[in-house]
Amino acid sequence: KMLRRVLCTVLFVGALPSLAEVSQGHISVVLLGATGDLAKKYLWQGLFQLYMDQVSSGHSFTFHGAALTALEPGQRLMFDVLKKLTCPPDEPPNRCAVLKDQFLKLSQYHQLKTAENYTVLNREIETLLRQEGLKEAGRIFYFSVPPFAYTEIARHINSSCRPPPGAWLRVVLEKPFGHDLESAQQLAAELRSFFREEEMYRVDHYLGKQAIAHILPFRDQNRQFLDPIWNRHHVERVEIVLKETVDAKGRTSFYEQYGVIRDVLQNHLTEALMFLTMELPANVSSAEEVLQGKLQAFQSLRGLEKNSAVLGQYQAYTSQVHEELQKAPDYISTTPTFAGVLIHSNSLRWEGVPFLLTSGKALDERVGYVRVLFKNRAYCTQSETLRDAGHSQCKAKQIIFYIGHGALSTPAVLVSRNLFRPVMPEGSWREAVSQSDLHIFGQPLTDYYMYSPVKERDAYSILISNIYHGRKDFFITTENLLASWRFWTPLLDGISHQPLRLYPGGVENQHLLDFEMVSGEVTFTLAEPVELLNPSRLMPSDYRTIQTKFRQSPLVSAWAEDLISQLASDIEKTASRTVARSGQFHLALSGGSSPVVLFQRLARYHYAFPWKHTHIWLVDERCVPLSDTESNFFSLHNHLLQSVRVPYFNVHPMPVHLNQRLCVEEDRGTELYAKEIVALVANASFDLVLLGVGTDGHTASLFPQSENGLKGAQTVVLTESPVKPHQRMSLSLPLINKARQVFVLVLGKGKHDITTLLSRVGYEPRKWPVSGVSPSSGQLVWYVDYEALLG
Amino acid sequence: KMLRRVLCTVLFVGALPSLAEVSQGHISVVLLGATGDLAKKYLWQGLFQLYMDQVSSGHSFTFHGAALTALEPGQRLMFDVLKKLTCPPDEPPNRCAVLKDQFLKLSQYHQLKTAENYTVLNREIETLLRQEGLKEAGRIFYFSVPPFAYTEIARHINSSCRPPPGAWLRVVLEKPFGHDLESAQQLAAELRSFFREEEMYRVDHYLGKQAIAHILPFRDQNRQFLDPIWNRHHVERVEIVLKETVDAKGRTSFYEQYGVIRDVLQNHLTEALMFLTMELPANVSSAEEVLQGKLQAFQSLRGLEKNSAVLGQYQAYTSQVHEELQKAPDYISTTPTFAGVLIHSNSLRWEGVPFLLTSGKALDERVGYVRVLFKNRAYCTQSETLRDAGHSQCKAKQIIFYIGHGALSTPAVLVSRNLFRPVMPEGSWREAVSQSDLHIFGQPLTDYYMYSPVKERDAYSILISNIYHGRKDFFITTENLLASWRFWTPLLDGISHQPLRLYPGGVENQHLLDFEMVSGEVTFTLAEPVELLNPSRLMPSDYRTIQTKFRQSPLVSAWAEDLISQLASDIEKTASRTVARSGQFHLALSGGSSPVVLFQRLARYHYAFPWKHTHIWLVDERCVPLSDTESNFFSLHNHLLQSVRVPYFNVHPMPVHLNQRLCVEEDRGTELYAKEIVALVANASFDLVLLGVGTDGHTASLFPQSENGLKGAQTVVLTESPVKPHQRMSLSLPLINKARQVFVLVLGKGKHDITTLLSRVGYEPRKWPVSGVSPSSGQLVWYVDYEALLG
Repeated sequence: KMLRRVLCTVLFVGALPSLAEVSQGHISVVLLGATGDLAKKYLWQGLFQLYMDQVSSGHSFTFHGAALTALEPGQRLMFDVLKKLTCPPDEPPNRCAVLKDQFLKLSQYHQLKTAENYTVLNREIETLLRQEGLKEAGRIFYFSVPPFAYTEIARHINSSCRPPPGAWLRVVLEKPFGHDLESAQQLAAELRSFFREEEMYRVDHYLGKQAIAHILPFRDQNRQFLDPIWNRHHVERVEIVLKETVDAKGRTSFYEQYGVIRDVLQNHLTEALMFLTMELPANVSSAEEVLQGKLQAFQSLRGLEKNSAVLGQYQAYTSQVHEELQKAPDYISTTPTFAGVLIHSNSLRWEGVPFLLTSGKALDERVGYVRVLFKNRAYCTQSETLRDAGHSQCKAKQIIFYIGHGALSTPAVLVSRNLFRPVMPEGSWREAVSQSDLHIFGQPLTDYYMYSPVKERDAYSILISNIYHGRKDFFITTENLLASWRFWTPLLDGISHQPLRLYPGGVENQHLLDFEMVSGEVTFTLAEPVELLNPSRLMPSDYRTIQTKFRQSPLVSAWAEDLISQLASDIEKTASRTVARSGQFHLALSGGSSPVVLFQRLARYHYAFPWKHTHIWLVDERCVPLSDTESNFFSLHNHLLQSVRVPYFNVHPMPVHLNQRLCVEEDRGTELYAKEIVALVANASFDLVLLGVGTDGHTASLFPQSENGLKGAQTVVLTESPVKPHQRMSLSLPLINKARQVFVLVLGKGKHDITTLLSRVGYEPRKWPVSGVSPSSGQLVWYVDYEALLG
Repeated sequence: KMLRRVLCTVLFVGALPSLAEVSQGHISVVLLGATGDLAKKYLWQGLFQLYMDQVSSGHSFTFHGAALTALEPGQRLMFDVLKKLTCPPDEPPNRCAVLKDQFLKLSQYHQLKTAENYTVLNREIETLLRQEGLKEAGRIFYFSVPPFAYTEIARHINSSCRPPPGAWLRVVLEKPFGHDLESAQQLAAELRSFFREEEMYRVDHYLGKQAIAHILPFRDQNRQFLDPIWNRHHVERVEIVLKETVDAKGRTSFYEQYGVIRDVLQNHLTEALMFLTMELPANVSSAEEVLQGKLQAFQSLRGLEKNSAVLGQYQAYTSQVHEELQKAPDYISTTPTFAGVLIHSNSLRWEGVPFLLTSGKALDERVGYVRVLFKNRAYCTQSETLRDAGHSQCKAKQIIFYIGHGALSTPAVLVSRNLFRPVMPEGSWREAVSQSDLHIFGQPLTDYYMYSPVKERDAYSILISNIYHGRKDFFITTENLLASWRFWTPLLDGISHQPLRLYPGGVENQHLLDFEMVSGEVTFTLAEPVELLNPSRLMPSDYRTIQTKFRQSPLVSAWAEDLISQLASDIEKTASRTVARSGQFHLALSGGSSPVVLFQRLARYHYAFPWKHTHIWLVDERCVPLSDTESNFFSLHNHLLQSVRVPYFNVHPMPVHLNQRLCVEEDRGTELYAKEIVALVANASFDLVLLGVGTDGHTASLFPQSENGLKGAQTVVLTESPVKPHQRMSLSLPLINKARQVFVLVLGKGKHDITTLLSRVGYEPRKWPVSGVSPSSGQLVWYVDYEALLG
């Protein structure tokens, strides 16, 4: 009867649809958590906006608020909220008043606590529809409840509240969606047991921010300008920033568990990052194409390490936590309230371009933006004084998606005038009049084309409209969510005991939170923080490198990092000397984990290394295909070869995979490698062999208790390892001992016992193969770090 | 008797050396062209300065001016110059006056025209030395004469004026040293027949500019700061600039033959470039180490092409040439008076960093500088207003070697304060007091540490002192000179008919000469020049790409550049589609010259290309080692593979070089390749095969008049080419015809005849192997450019 009454009123208003037009069917919206903060602040207003926008769409609506509260008080609470709904400025006041009245009449409160409550709700909807003779179009369940309640509600909806066949179900979920990959996977698995993927609408309200939502359309509509410049050759850096002035006071019970990375970076800023970095799909409104683009973009991201982030916490935070959460007096929070994270993509498009994601509470201003800064590719021949007149190409070039607040206090899209005049959709964005006195990102506003939305809309009203329209591209799919957690979780794990920089809050922060990029990592710019939480233990890093003897050979020892740096530069020196002498440098490298750091160092710091004249050989290899992640060559390829320019012809992986078989004797891989060595390496004497040592005293792939490769004429041998993969190929000890130089690298506490033992024993290669390393006319040098040497 | 008189005077002055001290021997300086412009302006003053500085060094001196003019008038002319020699401000006036008097007495004029004149000069020097009982230390011959006179003078000196054994000879040569590689080689060969390399001192007076001369010492003394940042990861760009306000008026007879590149860039700016880019030698004052460093740096430079430069000419130039050189009325000069050149180094240290060399006459200001701009690696969390207080890391970081003139009007070294406080040699450089109101390179002078020379010295006085001290590192060796010409000559050849942008001169130039970098090339920023010389012929470049049929298959035709761009993007589309479908993309590529442009385009523009999932196969190969420049694989490697990231495991060169032998039947290379294909390529059906066509109708390495590879079960075959190297390996026609797609690329006028013929003939693979290309279930597309299609 309620609906009939409403429909009559609607007819009375006149401009509204007749009964005949109401043929698209009926939509029931159920808002769970109808009296909570989010509902009060945004959701009811969004639903009212939906009603205003769609009242003539041909759909009819009912709105069902629900909570755990009993009917009577719940109803009162809910209608207190509804009465306060406001009319948007662009709506004629009369029409709005009528519609608000209707909206209130179409809204009902339900207590939803028990299984039965859900059955009753379902029955009421069915009855209503039957009475009014309406076809059901679909049901929206909006979960504005804490995540621990998700599973039960989902179960009830699935078992009792599914609409009949032909009508759709859309459940809307609010973050947090887990707090790491594992919990997110678990939550996703549970939800998947109740809902199909297409039924779930995970909200990231940033996708409803007008500037963020316009990134993909902007890239699409401006393809002609962006195609040539949207890449590493033209983009200098990208900043994705959300700065807040408020702190976490009053919300610490939530915040203390999540922190700024989970609260802002993992979701909001990451979504913006995806819109910027993904390859543009042919159809930017196809949810599926956008999803595939995002997933591919996630795949291309370089993994985060703990040094990818700088973290801070405003000074008052811990005391707020104490106040609100009744913690023990000695409790110190390690939750970051500020983070700056450096992200790199390995895609060919973006390789090397820094993406800086920054967010924090208690900062000096409230502002959000995505800023794409282009490289200055111009040289201005005339002097600077002249240059500043006009729109010189020497001025900065940027594209900014301004989310809101800050100096502009409106969403906006800004494009430097020396870049291009962007194509913007006329109906929804309009060119803004520049306030010439305002400076933004180092330039007067007059230097930009600036556009702002014709109608500024709240993110939630946009999202609710998109739920209604089934625009899944505005929501986070399970795959997207998990990809994001997969990306962020290693960092979150890595930083859980990371020191935080304390900051006073507001403008007092000054330069304290500035940070900078140094070889793929970030550090705070000011070296002397005012105060640190969890100060890292003092390390005698300026301990001098020791140069002495070990097993009658020279020994170099230092902390691991210094040792690697010394070793890398010794290798470079040897290489340069050898190339100068003989025109080429034959370097044989071992597998294992220790050399990885060395490879990375060689790749990043040694520009003068004569790679062009270097031949790379393997000391040993596991019998797996070269492209297997277990392969020594694969690791060498990943950490070194792909970053430097060793000619293809100079790279000599071991032939462990001939005729599509692994280390089969009759394929004669060992002979083949031996021949290659003889053909290319003068006298089969490598210029430098890099070895490691196993805890059992093995070196190369020569293992204890086996004669294989210890003596004899065979220079390359097949061996058996006690650990998987068992089959190995290795240079033999006699071949290794023909080298001009042999460096043995030993790293870590785990190697202390074998190091101690080796310092005492003589030549016993059957027991400890490494003790047989003794170049007949070359030089042997031990590189042993303090942990291995001193324990 | 003259010398004795002088020595008495010297003794009289007192502070000067006694006869006993004058035991280091005597030095005779002969200045050829003693009355010319350079001598008048700089050289005599430099020689006087040398005398003032070295009068107590233990050496005695005589100075011999020489010219073609007869004794009497020559003497008069020369002494007119000598009388005008000035005393430097830091010299006590009394001492200077005495020394000037001595200098004049030690100087003599000689007519040097005939062989006899030289013999006489030699005799006079010998006589003088004998009379005075002096040992001869050495002779300096300074060639301040036009280059056409070099050979004859050199011959005379060599045959008549060499000092006796034990004394050295130093001949000082002034540019130009040739006008291209060939002429420089010729001149060098001639000089080499008269002088030993160590006897020749080629002057580039920029090496005497204090700021330039300090680049290497600065890099050396600041190694600790520069080591981590002096590379492509930190340097954004480098500008090497010499701007002049004067024009070429009065000097067009010289200038018209040389132009700005030969006059300034090939020598002065290139030397600065070398000091910046070379790997720092252990000893920066070792001439030999510096030379080796420079030569290596030259080797690393990427070759220049005509689009590496923008060129201009001031409007008045041509009329000045007409006035001064009496040219025919319709003569138009194509000599550039302005050039901006983009240089890249391929070294690992500098790869990707743009080095911009700019010089021109009739510009808005006179200034010279070398500017190293570092990347901004900082993110400043606080808002901009706050940021500008203090020395924020977000401000620009630069190191500037300021040669002189301009706003500072002194040589200087500037280092941004947010970079580091440089180590400077205290005796010779002092910290300058900043004029806070001055802005330089976008920042107030107070943002820099600024140093200027304690004693500002003219380049020539520095160079003359270095000649005296035998500091060869301040001079250009023959190898250095030829390396520079080798680098510049291709550009000079390429631009001889390049259009020049005309510019009005002075501040009127405004933005007309601004230029920018676009994918490794430079263009003027303003697209619409006021006027062009030699406007390039109109090309119907907006001619639409034709899509039609050729031999019953689709044909795409366009101008070569558009065609390549279309082909590259078609290949990318195929690749993406194929990877999406099957996870990998098997691409077989042909050798030859046409694909090179395609490879380069794929390497530079196709960021989204799924290289990681692409397998690269060869269609054919020449039987040469893979690292031979004749090898198809070598070319593919150079132009494509080294720029993209195809995993090593996915690269499949043809095994033409097994067991260190080339294409020996019994090594079974063809079988090996066939097996590899079968193992990795589903159904041995390549996803895409790219072919070319020879003028004889061959394709792959399948040649006319041979059955080999045209039919039968063998999928990889050895064939014989009519041209060298004769032996080839090739995919067979049946294997090619199994591919899913085959693209045939045909470029250039030279292919017009075969294209026409192919349009008429049917299937006759024995005559024209390409006519047998007909994929059994795949698609064939012809990419033929207009020149091949239309002739």
